[in-house]
Amino acid sequence: MTTALIRSREVRLKSRPAATPTSENFELAEVEVSTPGPGQVQIRNLWMSVDPYMRGRMTTRKSYVPPFELGAPLQGGAVGEILASNAEGFAPGDLVQTMRGWREAFTTAADAPDLHKLPNLGLPSEAYLHVVGLTGLTAYVGIKKIANVRAGDVVFVSGAAGAVGSTACQIAKIIGATVIGSAGGPEKCAFLKEIGVDHAIDYKAEPSLTATLEKLAPDGIDVYFDNVGGEHLEAALNNAKTFARFALCGTISRYNSGDTRDPSSVHLAVPKSLRLEGFIVSNYFQLMPGFVQEMAAWIAAGQIKWRQTVDEGIESAPAAFIKLFTGENFGKMLVKLA
Amino acid sequence: MTTALIRSREVRLKSRPAATPTSENFELAEVEVSTPGPGQVQIRNLWMSVDPYMRGRMTTRKSYVPPFELGAPLQGGAVGEILASNAEGFAPGDLVQTMRGWREAFTTAADAPDLHKLPNLGLPSEAYLHVVGLTGLTAYVGIKKIANVRAGDVVFVSGAAGAVGSTACQIAKIIGATVIGSAGGPEKCAFLKEIGVDHAIDYKAEPSLTATLEKLAPDGIDVYFDNVGGEHLEAALNNAKTFARFALCGTISRYNSGDTRDPSSVHLAVPKSLRLEGFIVSNYFQLMPGFVQEMAAWIAAGQIKWRQTVDEGIESAPAAFIKLFTGENFGKMLVKLA
Repeated sequence: MTTALIRSREVRLKSRPAATPTSENFELAEVEVSTPGPGQVQIRNLWMSVDPYMRGRMTTRKSYVPPFELGAPLQGGAVGEILASNAEGFAPGDLVQTMRGWREAFTTAADAPDLHKLPNLGLPSEAYLHVVGLTGLTAYVGIKKIANVRAGDVVFVSGAAGAVGSTACQIAKIIGATVIGSAGGPEKCAFLKEIGVDHAIDYKAEPSLTATLEKLAPDGIDVYFDNVGGEHLEAALNNAKTFARFALCGTISRYNSGDTRDPSSVHLAVPKSLRLEGFIVSNYFQLMPGFVQEMAAWIAAGQIKWRQTVDEGIESAPAAFIKLFTGENFGKMLVKLA
Repeated sequence: MTTALIRSREVRLKSRPAATPTSENFELAEVEVSTPGPGQVQIRNLWMSVDPYMRGRMTTRKSYVPPFELGAPLQGGAVGEILASNAEGFAPGDLVQTMRGWREAFTTAADAPDLHKLPNLGLPSEAYLHVVGLTGLTAYVGIKKIANVRAGDVVFVSGAAGAVGSTACQIAKIIGATVIGSAGGPEKCAFLKEIGVDHAIDYKAEPSLTATLEKLAPDGIDVYFDNVGGEHLEAALNNAKTFARFALCGTISRYNSGDTRDPSSVHLAVPKSLRLEGFIVSNYFQLMPGFVQEMAAWIAAGQIKWRQTVDEGIESAPAAFIKLFTGENFGKMLVKLA
């Protein structure tokens, strides 16, 4: 079969941001999308994800994924539908997930490693970009595999109103933990109460996170799920029980700042016998199928809630990404492309 | 049976040190040692240990062991011989190990939790205070249990010429690792080569530990055994391979300084999927019997060497302890009491 040539707008990295990215670092371009050849499919993106980790790929420093190239379209999670297919197993209308975000449409080989047909679990398609996708899996791995949360644990989660954080809080609650979540501002803290978090800390209103955490967890914390680093990690170290487990997931407090200082209490890991473990979700993809089944059941039972902030149109993607660092988004930040 | 009253000199904590301890913080006193009653033994100490961890017990800050009391004798590892016994299983001349260092003699219940009769493995009795004792067990736990060193690993050890560090290096070599050790000064580095360390770093002569370590381990390190903290921990974080394991055993670089800053690269734990785990040897006492057998066999096979610095007489104990922080000792610092 054939299909008409279509055009796609895409966002490219124009220059590497020095600190917080600005619209100047991005440019919008339009390209022609080729007709699918044998074994290929043509895809129109419906949703794309913007995530803090992308900031790391905008610099050239050594990291766990290669940097984005200047002048090339950016990459990231996306859900799309098949427009045209020359490949077995894919039909127009099928929903697929790829890492080809930041563009409206594209043609690719059906056996591309990042192309996955989505199961039909009765969930909204954009949920595969967060709660049933990589952000949900990230929370799941951190809580279940890295920190090994058990019923009765006191769990502290920073960035708790974020996409990963709010899912981490709820999985910890399902397991039977007491959960303390930290977020910026009363609106986010109200959301934390809504999703069942036991104690919400508005860190912007607290002069000392260490003192606040000590008040809420007088016997200390068993687990810390870190999305923030810096002062939050410090407060967690200061309030950790002996043998506490730290799942280090992100350090958003330092992604854009020139501040290269880390918290000053890492030495407490020795007397407190702490285990701090960093992790990258891509090392746990093998857990995805089991996770999706478990998460779909939790959602069906009303045990997992989420928020999303949606901007519309490919041209709004850079601004949506920048919002991640100014705290303007609420829950998972998405761009609806079609 | 009875025995004559004897007198014992002991070292007491006179005041809490503000920074590096000085002789002013200690006082020597003489007490009468009681005749052993039923179920009691009278012990004369032959050797006592001085260790960096004792510095922590000289302050009142929260820690994993209670602080030393002002005006009371200090405590620490000691090997002694039974002078008189009113308890079954103990006879004059038997060698025992206790935590009743810093004194020449004492009487105690034979079932005191810190009293252990020493096996006869043909080792010098003071070896039970280091290579076959807690310092050896500390190295063993860090290398085998916490860092899980495997053949082929590149292992970096700081404080490598110290009692714990030099044993850690040699256990890692026995397992089949490549070992990089850091110590202060050419004499200590020569000792590292003597015990089979592959690369010795004289950190006092290196402007950048990070750069030096990168040169010696261009592909990065698999394991870091930390006795030092600070810049050493920083260099290890900067040069860690993905999934590297850090056994955090001590932070001697900060015990006496008012510097409360930690290394600035802890955030690398996330992208590199690092596991940092602090440990306290007292949580692994159950491994002691197996460790002693394994270590005695390694020593018999000539696979473990050690150095010790010996001062004589109870009155020299404070100065011997202070040497730990000025780097004047070489290998295990001991005081010979009789």
